[in-house]
This record gives sequence, C-alpha cells and structure tokens, in this order.
Amino acid sequence: MYVAIMGYGVVGSGVASLLEKNHEHIVKKSMQSEMELKYILDRRTFPGDPYEHLVISDFSKILEDDGVKIVVETMGGVHPAYEYVSACLNAGKSVVTSNKELVATKGCELLRIADEKNVNFLFEASVGGGIPIIRPISQCLAANDIDEIAGILNGTTNFILTKMISDGMTFEDALFLAQKNGYAERDPSADVDGFDACRKICILAALCFGKHVYPDCVHTEGIRKITLADVEYARSWGGVIKLIASAKKLDNGKVSVMVSPAFIQNHSQLATVDDVFNAILVRGDAIGDVVFYGKGAGKMPTASAVVADVIDCAKHMERKKFFGWQDSEPGYVADYLDNITSFYIRGTTQNAAAAIARINSLFGDVQMLTRANAPEGEFAFATDPLSERELDKKLALIEEAEIASVIRITDY
Amino acid sequence: MYVAIMGYGVVGSGVASLLEKNHEHIVKKSMQSEMELKYILDRRTFPGDPYEHLVISDFSKILEDDGVKIVVETMGGVHPAYEYVSACLNAGKSVVTSNKELVATKGCELLRIADEKNVNFLFEASVGGGIPIIRPISQCLAANDIDEIAGILNGTTNFILTKMISDGMTFEDALFLAQKNGYAERDPSADVDGFDACRKICILAALCFGKHVYPDCVHTEGIRKITLADVEYARSWGGVIKLIASAKKLDNGKVSVMVSPAFIQNHSQLATVDDVFNAILVRGDAIGDVVFYGKGAGKMPTASAVVADVIDCAKHMERKKFFGWQDSEPGYVADYLDNITSFYIRGTTQNAAAAIARINSLFGDVQMLTRANAPEGEFAFATDPLSERELDKKLALIEEAEIASVIRITDY
Repeated sequence: MYVAIMGYGVVGSGVASLLEKNHEHIVKKSMQSEMELKYILDRRTFPGDPYEHLVISDFSKILEDDGVKIVVETMGGVHPAYEYVSACLNAGKSVVTSNKELVATKGCELLRIADEKNVNFLFEASVGGGIPIIRPISQCLAANDIDEIAGILNGTTNFILTKMISDGMTFEDALFLAQKNGYAERDPSADVDGFDACRKICILAALCFGKHVYPDCVHTEGIRKITLADVEYARSWGGVIKLIASAKKLDNGKVSVMVSPAFIQNHSQLATVDDVFNAILVRGDAIGDVVFYGKGAGKMPTASAVVADVIDCAKHMERKKFFGWQDSEPGYVADYLDNITSFYIRGTTQNAAAAIARINSLFGDVQMLTRANAPEGEFAFATDPLSERELDKKLALIEEAEIASVIRITDY
Repeated sequence: MYVAIMGYGVVGSGVASLLEKNHEHIVKKSMQSEMELKYILDRRTFPGDPYEHLVISDFSKILEDDGVKIVVETMGGVHPAYEYVSACLNAGKSVVTSNKELVATKGCELLRIADEKNVNFLFEASVGGGIPIIRPISQCLAANDIDEIAGILNGTTNFILTKMISDGMTFEDALFLAQKNGYAERDPSADVDGFDACRKICILAALCFGKHVYPDCVHTEGIRKITLADVEYARSWGGVIKLIASAKKLDNGKVSVMVSPAFIQNHSQLATVDDVFNAILVRGDAIGDVVFYGKGAGKMPTASAVVADVIDCAKHMERKKFFGWQDSEPGYVADYLDNITSFYIRGTTQNAAAAIARINSLFGDVQMLTRANAPEGEFAFATDPLSERELDKKLALIEEAEIASVIRITDY
C-alpha cells in the first residue's frame, strides 16, 4: 500500500524519516506486506533532500492514484487543507492529520464524510503532540463517563510561565527567549493569546462529550497580562500560574469550555509540568483523575503520533474507528459568565482600610495574600467560589481601589 | 451478545455494576445491538446481591454456552484461572483479565492460543489499574522504538513511602496504617517485597520489547529495609525514595529488568506521585519521555479498564489485536550485576577519617550527604556510575565501616 504526505514542513519531514527509520517495525505492526511513501505534496522544491524525488506540486496526482490508501496532512491552516482532505476522504482514502485548526473547525464534517465512505479520519497528533490522548479517551476510557478534562496544552506559554516562575523573568523577556529558542513564532499571538490551546480543548471536548465545540464559542484569555507580582502572590497562596484549557459537562446538558491562566496548587500533577511539556487531566466517574504527560510539540514526537495513526489506518482498512462526534446546536457551550469558581484578585488603593472594609463587605472573610517588597497600597486576596457574573458586579462596586489583575483558581 | 464474569470479588463486582450503570453508552461504543451479563462464576453465594440470580458455581455452563462471546476473568492467582482462561480461548471465546500474575507467567502461551483461535486476550487492567497503558504502548506508541520503561507500579508501597517521606512515619507504622486503610493485606509480602510490581514490569517489558519476561528472572527488592535515615539523606540529595520497576533494552539484545527502591530527583514527574497513585514513564526514540498517571488500583478504576477491554473485544469479534509477544530464550534477562548505575551508600564507622580515605580511594571524589541529628560515626555518599558487580567488590574492601544501606540512583 502507498502513503502520501501533504505538506513537507517540520512534521511532514519527520513523518517521512520515521516511516523509513522504523520501516520494518511499522510494516509488521500494520499487518501489511508492504507500506511505501509515494508522494510528498509541497509547492516548494527541496534540492538535495533524501526524498526530493517524491515531491510533487500537483494534488490531483495523489487524488487519482488508487494505490494511495492513506494520506497524511501536515500542511496546517484550514485552506486548502480542508478541500484536499475532504477530496481524499470522498475518494475513499483514509486521512491522518496533525492539523488542530482543521480538526477544531471542520472535524465533525470530515468525520461524517469518512463515515459515509467507510474510511478513517484520525488526528492523534492534533492534541498533545506525541502524547497518546485521543485514542485513550476514545477507547481506553470508553467505559467511563468523562465529567471533565483540563490541561496544559500549549508548550510555548508553559515555557514562558516556567521562566517567570523559576527565574523571575518578565513576560517580555521570557517571550523573547522563547522566540530565540524557536518555541515561539515572530507573531506569537496564536500561542500567547490562547488560540492554540483553545483549538485543542475544542477537539478534546468533542471527543469526551460527543458534540462539536467551535473555537469561537469558547472564552479564551492568554497570558500577556500575567506579571511577576501575580507569580509571587500565587507562590504565597501555595501554587503556580498555568495556562489551563478546560471543558466540563454541566447538569443542563451544556458544556463549560474555557482557556485562561489559573492558579494551580503545588501538589497538583499539573503544577510540576514545566518548560515546553504538556499534560492532560481526564476526570472520569469510574477512573478518577488520570494524567497524560509528555512533549506536546516538536518534530519527532508529533511525527510519531502521526505514524501511529497511519499504522492504525493500515490495520483497519475495512473497518473505521468510531468517534461518536456529532454537530452541536447553538448555545451548546454555556455562557462563561455563569461559571462558578474562586478568584485571585490584585489591586492598588490609596486607602487600605476602606478598601479592605469594602472587600470584606462584598466578599466576606477573604484570604488575604502577601508578597515581599509589595509597593505601598498593593493588596491581593482569594475569594470563595462565586459566578463570573457576580464577580464582575462586585468588582464594579469597589470604589476605593483599582483592580489590576483577576485570575481564576482551580481545584485540579 | 453475552458476557460472563469469573470471580465475583472486588473487581468482578465492579465490572458487573459498571456494565449496568453505563450500559447504553457501552453498547453504543461496542457497535453491538445488545450486550448482557449472563453468568457470574464463584464458589460462594451472595444472598441479597443484585446479581445473585446470575451466580453459578459450574464453569462448564460458561464454557458450553455458545452465546457467551466474552469472558471476564477476575479471580486472581494462576490456578484455576489459567485452566479456565485457556479453555475459554480454545472454545473461541475472547477473554479479558485483570490478573497480573496470570499474564506475567502465562501471557505468551495464552496469547498464542488466542491467536490460533482468532479471538482476543486483553489485559489492560493487569497493570496500572485504570490507567490506560497497555493499549497506548501497543498502539499509540507503535511508531516508536521504545528504549526503556519505568514506573511506580504498586500503590501500597507508594503509600507507605509517602507516609515515611511526608509524615516521618517509620516503615512499620506506615505499613500498619496501610493495613488499617485496606491498602495492604494482612500478609503484605506481595506488595512490600516487590513481587506485585515485578509481575507488572514483566508484562510491560514483554509488550515493549516483544518477548516474555518471567518474574523469576527479575532481580526484585522490596522496601522493608528503607529507614527514615535513608529518607532524610534522599532529601538532602534533592529527591525522594520510590519503589521503581524498570526495564531497559540493551545493545546486546538482552533486557535489563529490575524492581528496587531508588532515589528519584525532586523535579522528576515520578517524584510527585504520592499515596496510592501509580505512574508509568515510557522512553521512546521519537517521542522522548511520556508519563501516564492515575489510580493504580481500586474497584472502579480497575473495573473501568476491564470494561474498556470488553468493549474492544466486542468491536473486534472478527479481528484480533496484535501484540507481537513471543516466548524468550534462557538468558534473555541480563544478569543484574552487570547493570551500571549510581548508588547511595550509608554506613557507620568508628574511624571516620580512615573510612572516608578508603571510600575516596575506592570511589574517587564522591558526593558526601548529610542529615540533621545524624548519630556519631554515620556517613552517607552518592557514587558515580559503576556496575553492581564492581560495587560489591569495592564495598567488601571497606574494612573501616559497616555498610547499612545501598540504594540505586536513577535518572528518570
């Protein structure tokens, strides 16, 4: 059987080299007599590359070659990835992708086409890089009702926060270092504003709860506003700040899905996830908390997840995987203002006594936090759980202080 | 299709109740029209139990009922579990087990029978309770060459060590508490002497490296000898003591497999695994380190792993899973004396100057460790890497001191 790769960038070239390096092992695991890479689709040319002779620029060659049974999509972006992938599925080819944007926005539709054509559409590499998570959720945890899923899904922001927490670097300096190390793009918005993590939690929520969650329905906050003062207060509270993407099933049939920085207690398994590593916590009714940890990005980890899906496609040529992922109705994602959680709040005041009195009258007996060398008039505290809507109302009533920072507190 | 359960103990009764509780979900995931629990085999009777009417004591009823396609074995022990399971497989029934002793000693043979009869023999629940690990290793990581696997595989010993580390309890007191909490048996040997962890690492090693590892070939040490002094020295070294089961592929085609207490650095993902939790680290060529964390035992987590396997059997009635697990030749497990590692060594001496001089002449410039309130004449140090054989020779040459404790130092 033949395989084609669309998009010869970092991940695509990793897939090509892994298919060659572990070729014998992969053929055996695939239960096939042979598996060969036949085409690599890319607009560019690659003089001197070991796979130069396989590179083509005409997509129709792949589409029209009936020997190509599995197509790997590692182009990224929605267009033309979507058009190519749907054409391949419609032509009866299985597709494996690492493209989280494609899966988060078009997953439901592409799975429907795969279903109609009795082929597979697999996307293990779209979340958590090389960490096995899609398959464990859909298979290993099949016996569980999953209530909640939460994770550190973006390595770039986790690297930046780790540098702020461990080395006292400012956000700007840590971002610069991440860019220097190749962890962040020149335009870092997709990472630091939370959009990448948002796409991934949409995919996980769809898998866990069975309905598509569209990224534009998800309240998404990044880490640009996090300061070293917040990091210090988190430490005095007994934890660290992480960018957490979470999805939770509600009693009313809706889901709560959100991406935002959050306080995590030091003894949590998510608190020790540092640098570019990712971790995903799954909370099931029978199993309790299970955590999956590993490198969430990078050429070879991601390529290894893609190749595992290729093997799975090859093994299941006549039998597709069942994901049970349907489209969702408008309003499926609950208004985040109804979420109930505790909050950390930092502010400054000219009149500490009046501000504290007001805070106590609004929030009750809150937990005040301290840090060394806090400037005159700065205060910080942690609230009991209340809704986001209620919080906003109460904050508006604090006339005696300026609120500088609000961060959610989790129980993971 | 019908399901039977053999052994109505903690896990077996969890499976029965989970099959009922999540029945609709499970049938859907199984791609079956119906799935029903028909028999529960147990010698005992269960008056008033909701499944009392399904309990039988005659195994042949299950064996001879062609409607029973999947048999769950949760009896424990090798006999008669082995005879019953092989009879079921030979009769063309798929078998799901949580019985690590059975899989560790007879896995290779039972997989061969399953292979011949084209049915499945699945055992996700035999390692790590509800943590998905067998399937991720055999499928998700199929594209990786796995070099090494290591984990905290026994919840009872991890609970005891956690109490020693966090609360300063002695081994004896922590064991007593574990027994009181139901984490340890009255005869705690299978746990505290490492035999339970040994069976589990044998199963993982077979899966990762393709050949059966028999428990009696594995050097196994428990935690009975660990003292609070060792715990304190580990802390001053910058880590904790955990019972680690590990398996590593060697260049000569053999494998190194061992169970023993070990020093783990504080920043390791294994260091923060506390109480009865388990964690398994898999080191692959493409993926790097991946860690799976969760409850390694308990009724419902283990039952959820069993039921996930039942679903997988139901989905693959005409197609068996491929494990690639063959028998091994004598000598496949390398002599542990050839292992090379660093060691922590604690001893007492009447002549500190002479002992230190001897240690330096034998081990070079070692890292001396200290603890508060150490008794007169006590010393401890960490060596550079050397073989176990070499270590034993050198220790025998230290005439100026009594060696009280030797613990391996890992790089996980």
